[in-house]
Amino acid sequence: MTDDFFAVVGRQRAHRAFTAEPVTDAFVARLLEAATYAPSAENRQPWEFVVVREPSLRARIGEITERAWTGLGRSFSETRLTPGLLADVDAGATGGVAAAPVLIVVCADTERGLAITAPSSVFPAIQNLLLAATALGLGSALTTIATGGPDLADALGLPDHVLPLAVVPIGHPARPLGPPRRDPFTAHTHRDRYGTPW
Amino acid sequence: MTDDFFAVVGRQRAHRAFTAEPVTDAFVARLLEAATYAPSAENRQPWEFVVVREPSLRARIGEITERAWTGLGRSFSETRLTPGLLADVDAGATGGVAAAPVLIVVCADTERGLAITAPSSVFPAIQNLLLAATALGLGSALTTIATGGPDLADALGLPDHVLPLAVVPIGHPARPLGPPRRDPFTAHTHRDRYGTPW
Repeated sequence: MTDDFFAVVGRQRAHRAFTAEPVTDAFVARLLEAATYAPSAENRQPWEFVVVREPSLRARIGEITERAWTGLGRSFSETRLTPGLLADVDAGATGGVAAAPVLIVVCADTERGLAITAPSSVFPAIQNLLLAATALGLGSALTTIATGGPDLADALGLPDHVLPLAVVPIGHPARPLGPPRRDPFTAHTHRDRYGTPW
Repeated sequence: MTDDFFAVVGRQRAHRAFTAEPVTDAFVARLLEAATYAPSAENRQPWEFVVVREPSLRARIGEITERAWTGLGRSFSETRLTPGLLADVDAGATGGVAAAPVLIVVCADTERGLAITAPSSVFPAIQNLLLAATALGLGSALTTIATGGPDLADALGLPDHVLPLAVVPIGHPARPLGPPRRDPFTAHTHRDRYGTPW
């Protein structure tokens, strides 16, 4: 493993299966500090992080995730995902994510930053967090399915002005994953105007 | 300069002033390739990148940015920003951003990914792009103010299903910037439930 920037970027994958090994507060602190170096509109830093370790709360978030997935997400996604990815997300939604020793729920405080700028101000911080986990050899994933209804906010006691945007499981990976599968950037890049190929 | 992951994260800043030195296609390619390694919902990779170098188009995007800023954004922000940051954004909106040799307009294709997942699927890629620019010694910034109306899509010939989410100026920095100013993560971190301090 190397901490070289481009090597870290190139090996980031979504992990949804973890060992029982704990993740120390020192690790969590490095992830969250890295997250806060991301940019935000007006430098308002509207992120709030709820670091969930308590087993009953993790189980509750697992239930919320599983219900959202089996109730709606899966029927929508099952014809769209590859069989391998569908099986992976199935396993993650039905136990794997909640089995991570730490769930970091990343929120936006809409009193500190404008609600309209919440996504552009918080998803970059989440990406820093995911990359930092990769750099440290931890597994992580960006999941949003549990954030759609009121249940997650209720479980964590979030005030109305604090919106959950993602649930990021953090743990030691159950198994190594290969490099990410991506289209070449040239397939989605245009020169000057849309439709002019790179 | 080092490519160490945490060093790159720690020195990312918003650059809004650039030298006239060109940015080669090889640099742009490295930024966009890094962007595509970010996660996206269902791995749909809904990003589309329009790389704008043409001077008249950059000037047009500069007009759109300046009009959005002086017409609405500035009056909202002027009492919220520190004087230094306000002056910096003023300079960026009124010429600095458009003076960058390359503007990368990052869009979401809502036929390839669901519109509701566009922010969570595209802002992580934008953050990879910004970090990669930092790693390579280039200046960049995440700007969204030009994306609010129809003018940017018109200028670039975007189809209706391709939504611009950000304009990222890329260039060689006019001057070095110090480390970012951030609250400690502990000020925005909670244990298990909102309100329990870290």
